[in-house]
Amino acid sequence: MTPMSTRIGIVGYGNLGRGVEHAIDQNPDMELVAVFTRRDPGQLSLVHSGVPVYSVDSVADHRGSIDVMVLCGGSKGDLPEQGPELAALFNTVDSFDTHAEIPNYFAALNAASGANGHLALISTGWDPGLFSLSRVIGESVIPSGSTHSFWGKGVSQGHSAALRKVEGVAGAIQYTVPSQEAIDAARAGQALGQSAADMHLRECYVVLEEGADAARVEHDIVTMPHYFDEYKTVVNFISAEELAANHAGLPHGGFVVRSGTSAAGDDLMLEFSLKLDSNPAFTACVMVACARAVHRLSERGEAGARTIFDIPPALLSPKSAEELRAQLL
Amino acid sequence: MTPMSTRIGIVGYGNLGRGVEHAIDQNPDMELVAVFTRRDPGQLSLVHSGVPVYSVDSVADHRGSIDVMVLCGGSKGDLPEQGPELAALFNTVDSFDTHAEIPNYFAALNAASGANGHLALISTGWDPGLFSLSRVIGESVIPSGSTHSFWGKGVSQGHSAALRKVEGVAGAIQYTVPSQEAIDAARAGQALGQSAADMHLRECYVVLEEGADAARVEHDIVTMPHYFDEYKTVVNFISAEELAANHAGLPHGGFVVRSGTSAAGDDLMLEFSLKLDSNPAFTACVMVACARAVHRLSERGEAGARTIFDIPPALLSPKSAEELRAQLL
Repeated sequence: MTPMSTRIGIVGYGNLGRGVEHAIDQNPDMELVAVFTRRDPGQLSLVHSGVPVYSVDSVADHRGSIDVMVLCGGSKGDLPEQGPELAALFNTVDSFDTHAEIPNYFAALNAASGANGHLALISTGWDPGLFSLSRVIGESVIPSGSTHSFWGKGVSQGHSAALRKVEGVAGAIQYTVPSQEAIDAARAGQALGQSAADMHLRECYVVLEEGADAARVEHDIVTMPHYFDEYKTVVNFISAEELAANHAGLPHGGFVVRSGTSAAGDDLMLEFSLKLDSNPAFTACVMVACARAVHRLSERGEAGARTIFDIPPALLSPKSAEELRAQLL
Repeated sequence: MTPMSTRIGIVGYGNLGRGVEHAIDQNPDMELVAVFTRRDPGQLSLVHSGVPVYSVDSVADHRGSIDVMVLCGGSKGDLPEQGPELAALFNTVDSFDTHAEIPNYFAALNAASGANGHLALISTGWDPGLFSLSRVIGESVIPSGSTHSFWGKGVSQGHSAALRKVEGVAGAIQYTVPSQEAIDAARAGQALGQSAADMHLRECYVVLEEGADAARVEHDIVTMPHYFDEYKTVVNFISAEELAANHAGLPHGGFVVRSGTSAAGDDLMLEFSLKLDSNPAFTACVMVACARAVHRLSERGEAGARTIFDIPPALLSPKSAEELRAQLL
């Protein structure tokens, strides 16, 4: 069986969009055919693929030449509006990650894609995405137990941006660090009922503007509602040179632990973990594998919104079902 | 939505069959309705469920009252014959694990189940099963990299049985132990091209029969073809009392490591691990979750053979799609 080729479009060309461009290079059955941007297309130089760049306003002209559109915009500003619009025109994959809004977002994309015969896979990547999958599998195969998700050590782009908005901050980065005590408790099956704030601490590296008051900046950070006030937060002041030299990457990772007992009292533990030099590069890799599955399901006539929970895993792989059974089962 | 109830039958009442019986207790949407045995049904006392026990010869009489039959026989003696016979009569789930025979076994069950409108999920549990799933996901999301599977530390029932057949052995157990050096290399993304024999050692605890020659027994073990000759094998002689006191359980576990790089050169690593007090108890838990999925897919009209690669993960869970999206995505 010759693998079906999938023609991909990218909407949004930030870290994630560039990651998708790179990821397609590692998947010979995928082809990048166009990038769409809200910026001036003439100003956008692609990293290496040389495909045409268009204004996102012209996206409807490309119906029929793109099998799956990979939406690389943000969950706050871009996807709530772009998602339904693009799902009405194309099969889509996105990484929508505002957890509380997922039911509404799913409903909006289900309506837009279903009415137009397209398939929309929402909220994929690693969390939501592979971590979510591990939570479902963990709960299903160990029904009596507890699940804990840990993030880090890694850079939170949202928290880093929040730091940069504090008056007197010239540059900053924030690492989320899981608490070793909480990890040990989760693995031992001790359901401590921890909140995310109990299970993680927030490590900040901050460059002050000249003349800024370090004590006031630190106070503004550790008391910032939602972002830092509920967490154990450590603020380290560093130089601009050190920030550039040692904190330029976007590493991340973490793990999902499901631990419990069988009905006969046997302890059972399942763990899924990731260690990533680049968060957006890996999120992009997952989205590209998901785009393959979306194309296949769409070819079978499926339409409407889906999540990673609905995807038969074989469809993520370029290998045939026969190859998967012979080589990987 | 009221969850659909699934009526389960068990064929084969050894460690795995008892594990399935227990696992059903933890899944309120599942009901055990019958156990089938090749032994005299009157001699079989069930652990706790009190359901009727029948001879496997009468299994055809139970068509219509069992939604999914969970096959708990062995891959060598039982399943090659029982699998196709039972898949012609019922939806089935099994843990067939003779890797080289999987393509033939799949074809036989596909023919038998498909021709009779049933669904047959083969080769599930943890390996083959959840480990296989991790290998497919790992390869799909990190296309450029290497995959290593480690088993243990845990009891290999097949190798323990092989030890017990050696002349002069009164009792024995074998633990498979992954090599720490190989684990470190796999996590570091060093593709050493190791074989399973390079990556694991075999730790044997042996009770000698009175008057047996320890040196000859040890020699017979470490030179045994296929089982031990290619492995680093350690033989420890212990007393019958010590074997009973310290080696009565069937713990197991292990992990799948996928490590590689993005097209931009970022290191990426994914790991799935299990730590199990009881291997058959956990295999049974996975089979029961799979039985739920089989029943649902069969109700949709699907027929033929499947593997875990073909199962949308949401179907493993008793929760509705809405609940999964709201709680676990």
